[in-house]
Amino acid sequence: MKNLDKLFKPSSVALVGASNEKGSVGKDLIDNLKNGYKGKVYPVNLKSKKIADLKAYSSLSKIKGSVDLMLIAVPAKIVPRILEEGGKKGIRAAVVISAGFKEVGNNDLEKKVQDICSKYNISLIGPNCLGIINPHISLNASFAASKANPGNIAFISQSGALCTAILDSASSLGLGFSKFISVGNKAVIDEVELFNYLANDDKTKIVAVYAEQLSNPKEIIKASLKLRKKGKPLLILKAGKSMAGAKASASHTGALAGSDKVYDALFNQAGIIRVDKIEELFNYIKIFNNDKLIKSKNIAIITNAGGPGVVSVDCIEKNNLSLAKLSKKTKDSLKNILPPAASYSNPVDILGDAKASRYKNSLEQVVIDKNVDSVIVILSPQSSTDVVESAKAIIEINKKHKKPIIPVFMGDHLVVDARDFFIKNNISSYLFPEDAVKSLAVFNDFYQLKNKKEKEKKMDFSDVNYKKVEEIFSEASKNNKKSFPEAEAREVFSLYNFEILKSYVAKSKLEAKKYAKKIDKDLVLKIVSPDILHKSDVSGIILDVKPNEVEKMYDLIIKNVKARAPKARIEGVLVTEMLKDDGIEIILGAFKDPALGQTIMVGLGGIYVEVFKDVSFGLNPLKYSDAKNMINSLKSIKLLEGVRGQKEKDVEALIEAILRLAKLLDDFPEIKELDINPLFVLDKGKGVKVLDSRIILE
Amino acid sequence: MKNLDKLFKPSSVALVGASNEKGSVGKDLIDNLKNGYKGKVYPVNLKSKKIADLKAYSSLSKIKGSVDLMLIAVPAKIVPRILEEGGKKGIRAAVVISAGFKEVGNNDLEKKVQDICSKYNISLIGPNCLGIINPHISLNASFAASKANPGNIAFISQSGALCTAILDSASSLGLGFSKFISVGNKAVIDEVELFNYLANDDKTKIVAVYAEQLSNPKEIIKASLKLRKKGKPLLILKAGKSMAGAKASASHTGALAGSDKVYDALFNQAGIIRVDKIEELFNYIKIFNNDKLIKSKNIAIITNAGGPGVVSVDCIEKNNLSLAKLSKKTKDSLKNILPPAASYSNPVDILGDAKASRYKNSLEQVVIDKNVDSVIVILSPQSSTDVVESAKAIIEINKKHKKPIIPVFMGDHLVVDARDFFIKNNISSYLFPEDAVKSLAVFNDFYQLKNKKEKEKKMDFSDVNYKKVEEIFSEASKNNKKSFPEAEAREVFSLYNFEILKSYVAKSKLEAKKYAKKIDKDLVLKIVSPDILHKSDVSGIILDVKPNEVEKMYDLIIKNVKARAPKARIEGVLVTEMLKDDGIEIILGAFKDPALGQTIMVGLGGIYVEVFKDVSFGLNPLKYSDAKNMINSLKSIKLLEGVRGQKEKDVEALIEAILRLAKLLDDFPEIKELDINPLFVLDKGKGVKVLDSRIILE
Repeated sequence: MKNLDKLFKPSSVALVGASNEKGSVGKDLIDNLKNGYKGKVYPVNLKSKKIADLKAYSSLSKIKGSVDLMLIAVPAKIVPRILEEGGKKGIRAAVVISAGFKEVGNNDLEKKVQDICSKYNISLIGPNCLGIINPHISLNASFAASKANPGNIAFISQSGALCTAILDSASSLGLGFSKFISVGNKAVIDEVELFNYLANDDKTKIVAVYAEQLSNPKEIIKASLKLRKKGKPLLILKAGKSMAGAKASASHTGALAGSDKVYDALFNQAGIIRVDKIEELFNYIKIFNNDKLIKSKNIAIITNAGGPGVVSVDCIEKNNLSLAKLSKKTKDSLKNILPPAASYSNPVDILGDAKASRYKNSLEQVVIDKNVDSVIVILSPQSSTDVVESAKAIIEINKKHKKPIIPVFMGDHLVVDARDFFIKNNISSYLFPEDAVKSLAVFNDFYQLKNKKEKEKKMDFSDVNYKKVEEIFSEASKNNKKSFPEAEAREVFSLYNFEILKSYVAKSKLEAKKYAKKIDKDLVLKIVSPDILHKSDVSGIILDVKPNEVEKMYDLIIKNVKARAPKARIEGVLVTEMLKDDGIEIILGAFKDPALGQTIMVGLGGIYVEVFKDVSFGLNPLKYSDAKNMINSLKSIKLLEGVRGQKEKDVEALIEAILRLAKLLDDFPEIKELDINPLFVLDKGKGVKVLDSRIILE
Repeated sequence: MKNLDKLFKPSSVALVGASNEKGSVGKDLIDNLKNGYKGKVYPVNLKSKKIADLKAYSSLSKIKGSVDLMLIAVPAKIVPRILEEGGKKGIRAAVVISAGFKEVGNNDLEKKVQDICSKYNISLIGPNCLGIINPHISLNASFAASKANPGNIAFISQSGALCTAILDSASSLGLGFSKFISVGNKAVIDEVELFNYLANDDKTKIVAVYAEQLSNPKEIIKASLKLRKKGKPLLILKAGKSMAGAKASASHTGALAGSDKVYDALFNQAGIIRVDKIEELFNYIKIFNNDKLIKSKNIAIITNAGGPGVVSVDCIEKNNLSLAKLSKKTKDSLKNILPPAASYSNPVDILGDAKASRYKNSLEQVVIDKNVDSVIVILSPQSSTDVVESAKAIIEINKKHKKPIIPVFMGDHLVVDARDFFIKNNISSYLFPEDAVKSLAVFNDFYQLKNKKEKEKKMDFSDVNYKKVEEIFSEASKNNKKSFPEAEAREVFSLYNFEILKSYVAKSKLEAKKYAKKIDKDLVLKIVSPDILHKSDVSGIILDVKPNEVEKMYDLIIKNVKARAPKARIEGVLVTEMLKDDGIEIILGAFKDPALGQTIMVGLGGIYVEVFKDVSFGLNPLKYSDAKNMINSLKSIKLLEGVRGQKEKDVEALIEAILRLAKLLDDFPEIKELDINPLFVLDKGKGVKVLDSRIILE
C-alpha cells in the first residue's frame, strides 16, 4: 500500500492532541473522526485515559496495533517529536493541523518537519491546515463544521478557512467529493503530487484547486496532461495576483510581465482551466459533474422568455460558441408543436404561457437535431408556468440523451422546488443564462483539448555549440561577471545558431573598410550623431552600398551631413548589413519569475512595446505548438501574416527562434534575464535576424 | 395631474378584457388589481355582468365615473377601437398588455395605436407587455405571478418575461420597488420619458433597466444627468449586442464599430452604469440600496479566512479601488484586541476561531480609521464561528456609522439565517467577495461622477462657414451626388477650419511649379510609381525643397529614379507641404449607427488601425471632456504624450478637431459617413493637419 493510499484510505488513524474539551480543535477532530469512519481510531492524549468513549493513549508508541495515519493537532514545537515517534513506529502518513510554522516565519521548525518526513519517508499534509476528508469511506480527518457528501470532485485548497464555505455551498448544490484536501503550508506534499495520485484515483473525475502559490511548471504541465488523458479536468482558482509579481526588474522583458500573465501562460500550456472567481468554481464544477463529456460547440436555446434568450445569444458569441442552426426538419416539427407567435428558429421562444408539455415537445425535437450539440432550457416563472412539471419533463428527456441539456430556471421561491429536483436527479442547473453559457464554453474547450491529436513538430537543435557557451559562462562566473552586453551576447546567440545582423560603428574610413569586409554583403551606412534625430533629413543614410565602395560612401555621408548640419557632432558611421526586405521588429526575451522560474516572452518590438504591450509568455518545457500559440495570441500576428498587401513574414523562423531560446534557457539555468530587441522577422523563407541583444546571469 | 401620474398613481382603473376564466390573462389581471389597491376598479367585458365580484361593464363608455387608467388585454385588432373609446371618454393613460403588433410585423396596427394616442394625448405603456406595478399604492396592473414589495427601485424592462424572474429573485433578496414597468414595444412611452418622470419621483432612488434597443442619445444623456443630479443611479443591462450592429459598412470607420462599442460610448458619456450580466444587476442594485452614497475608494477588509481575503485584494486592484492603509493607531488598537497570530494590517485576518466579539471589536476600530472609506467583512463558517451573533454585531456597528459596511457571508445552510437577518435590517450582503468589491467599485464610480465639478471648456466654432458647406451639400443633393472623395471632402473640412496638408500629383515640371506656388511652403517631393515600394531605396524622396527650387528638384528626382530603377513606370511626382516634425497618424471618422445615429470615432491611423483596432467612439452632443476622454481611452495616448523621448503631441488640437467634426455632423445630419485618415497630430502647439479624407452623404 502506497503512502498516499494510507493517507486517504487508512485502516487506522491515531489522533495526537485528541481532547474532550468542548470547543477545542482536538474535540472537533475526534468527533469528526468517530462520525461514520469504519477504521480503528486511537486518541492520543498525555492526561486523559478516555476520549469520546474511546481508550486514549499517552503516546503513539503506546498503541499496540499498527497505525496508517497520524493526525496531529498539538502545539507546533512538539510536532517534530511526534513525527519522529510516529516514524519510528512505522507510520508513513501524517496530517498536521497545527499552525505556527513557516506562515509565521518559523522556517526552521518547518525544515525540521521536512527532514523527519524525508528520513522516515512520511507523506505529510500540512502543517497549518484544516485536514483531509474522504467521504467514500466516511473519513473526516479535519475540523470542518460541514459534512462532505461522497462524489467525484477532488478539492484541494491552500486556504483552510475557505474550505468550510466551499463545503457548505457544495452541500446545498448537491455536489459531492472524492477527496477534500486542505494542503496548508505544503511542507511535504504539494499539489503536483496530489494531481499525480488523483489521476489514478477511480473515485475522482474532477480536480478543483484554490492556490495562492504554485511552483515547478514542468511537473504541473506533466501532471495536468496525465489528468486530462483520463478525462479529468483540472480547475484552478489562483489568487494573490496583485501581491506577487516581479515588480522591480532590470530588463525590459521583466518589467512587461506581471506574475499573473506568467500564470496565464502556464495554465494555457498545461491545459489547466483557470477560474477567476469563487462562484465560477462552482459553475464549472457543476457542468463537468454532468458526466457527459462530449462536444458542445453548437448550442440551442429553448426559452419561455425573450429577454434571457437574447442575453444567452450575446453570451454565446462572446464565449466563442455557436448558436446552432436548426435543420428544416426540426423547424417544421416545431411549427406543428408551437403556437404561431412562437419562434421556430434558435433561440426557440415557446412563449410566456408555455406549460410543461410545450417544453417537453420542443426539447424532444431540438435535442435530436444533428446540428445541435447541447441545449440550454430557460424558464422564467410566469403566471401560467408549470415549474416543477417542466423540470420533470426536462429530466426525463435528459436521461434519454447523451447531449448536455442545461436547465436555467430563473427566480427564487417560485423555482426552488424544481432546482432541488434537478439536484436529486444529478442534473446541473443554473440561475442565470450567462453562467450556463460560460460553463458550457469551458466544458467544450476541455473536450476539444482532450481530443486534440497532439502531433508535435520536433525541431533538432543538435547544431548548438553548448560547450563553447558553457566555457563563456563559467569563465564569466570565475570573474564574477554577470552582464553580457551587445557584442558578447551576440556571440552566445550566434553559438546557438541565431542569425546575427552584423553592425559596427566605424570611426574612420579605414575602420569602415574593415567592417565591410567582415560583413561581406551589401551595406547600409548611417550617420551616428547625438544632434541628428532624423538622419534622412540631412542625407545621413545611404542604402545599398557595395562592400568595395564603402570608403567612397563613407566620405560622401560625412560630406552630406557637414553640408546640411554643420554644427552637428559626428561620432562615426554605422555600418550594417542591408536587409533586402522590411522586417517586422519583434522583441524576444526571458526572465525569472519568482515562483515559476525562467519565462520566455515574445511581442511586438520597437516603440510599440511600451504603447501596446502586445506580448505573450511561455514556460519550459516549451513545445512547437506552445511557441506557435504564443505568436498567434499576439495582436501583431496580423503584421506577421502581412496586412494591407505587405508580404507574409517568416513565422516559422520566429517559432524556431523561440524554441532555440527555450533550449538555451534549459541548458543554462543560470541565465537570469535576456533581451533580443529587435529581432527582425523577414519575409517568409528569409528567416529572422538578431540586431540588439543582451544577457544577464544570476 | 399629469398623464404619467395617472398611469402610476391612478384613482381608478378600467380593465378592458377582464375575465372570470381561470388561467386566462384577464383573470390574472383582475385578481392582481383587486389585491390591495384602494382605487376604483372597473372590469369591462362584453358578456359578463359580474367579474371577480365586481360589477362589469360592456364598454368603457358605459362607466359612469371618470377613469384615470385603462388597462387593455383584448385581441390586438380591437385595441385601436378601445383606445379611441377611452380617448373620447377622457382617459389619458393606458397600459396595453395585448400582443400582435410590431413584434410580429404588424407595423400598421402599431402606427394606428400611436396616432390615436397622439390625437387624444394618451400616455400609453406597451403594447405587448406584462403591465406596470406601483407597490406603494398596492397597484398591480400586470399579470405577474410574483408580488413586488414597496421600495426604492424603479425597474424598467423591455422583456416582460424577464420581469417575473426579477420579481421572484428580488423578493427573496429583500429588494423593493417604487415602480415596476414592462415597456413592451414602447409604441408611445419609451425609457427616456420614464427617466425624466422618475427623476422627480420621490419614491424612486435607483433606476434599473433591461433594454434591447435604445435610441435618441441626446435625450438619454440629458435624462441620465437629471437623474444623477438627484443622486439616482441609472443602471442598464443592454442585451442584443451581437445581433445588432452595422456589419456591412462602406467606410473604414463603420467597419471598426460594432454597435456594442457605440453603446459603451453612449453609456460613458451619459454616466450610465452598464451592467453586463443579469446577476450583476442585483449586485449593483443591492449596493445602491444601502442608502449611503459616499466615497468608497479605500477599502478595508476584515476576514476570518485568509483565502477570501487574498481574493478580495486581487479584486480591489483589478477594479481600480485601493486597499486602505490602516493608521498606526488602528493597528495598535487591533494588536490589543486580536490574538498574536492575527494580521493587524489590511486585510485584517481575525483568524478562523474568531467569535462575534472579535468581529465587533475589530470592526469598531477599523471603521473609524480616517484612511478607510468602507469595510468588507468576510465570514467563512468554521467550526467555532458564531454566525448569527457576528451578523448582529456587524448590523449594530453599521447603524452607527455612515461608511458602507458590506458583509460577505460565504457558504449556504450555515449562513442563511444571518443573511435573512441582514435583509431584515436593510443591509446588503453578498455571497462572494468578488461581487462585493465590484459592486463597491461601481458605487464609488457613481459617487465620484455625481460630485465631479463639471467645468467644461467651451470652444467657439463661430468661425465655420456653414453657409458654403450647405450650398455644396444641397447642390450635391440636386445632382444626386453622394460621395465626396479627396479634394472635395478637403474643401468641406477646410470650410470648417480644419488645417489641410496640401498635396498634389504633378505630371510635369510646370505643374509642380504651379502647385509649389499654391502651397507656398517648404516641400517634400515623392516619386509616384506603381513599381516602387520603397521610395527611399531609389532616391525617390527629396525633403526640404524650397518652392523656388521645385523645378530643379523635379528633374533631379526623375533622373535619380530613372538611374536606379530604369524599368519603373513613373506616374508623376507628389508635391506635399513639408511637415517640420513627425506627426502621429490618427484616424478620425464618423458613421451612422442604426440605433444611435451619428457616431464619431478617433484612433491610431495608418497600418496599425487594422492590427490593434485602437479606436474609441463618441456621440453628439459631445462635450470637451467627452472628446478628451475618447482620446485618453486610447492605448495610443502614450504615443501622443511622447513615448521614449519623443516630443509631446498637440492633443489639445486633436480635441478641437474632434469637436469640429461633431459640429459638422450636428450641422449636417445628412452626413452618413466620413473618414480623415491620416490626420497628422503634430508637436504640441503645432496643431493637426488633414491629409486624406472623404465624405459620403445619405
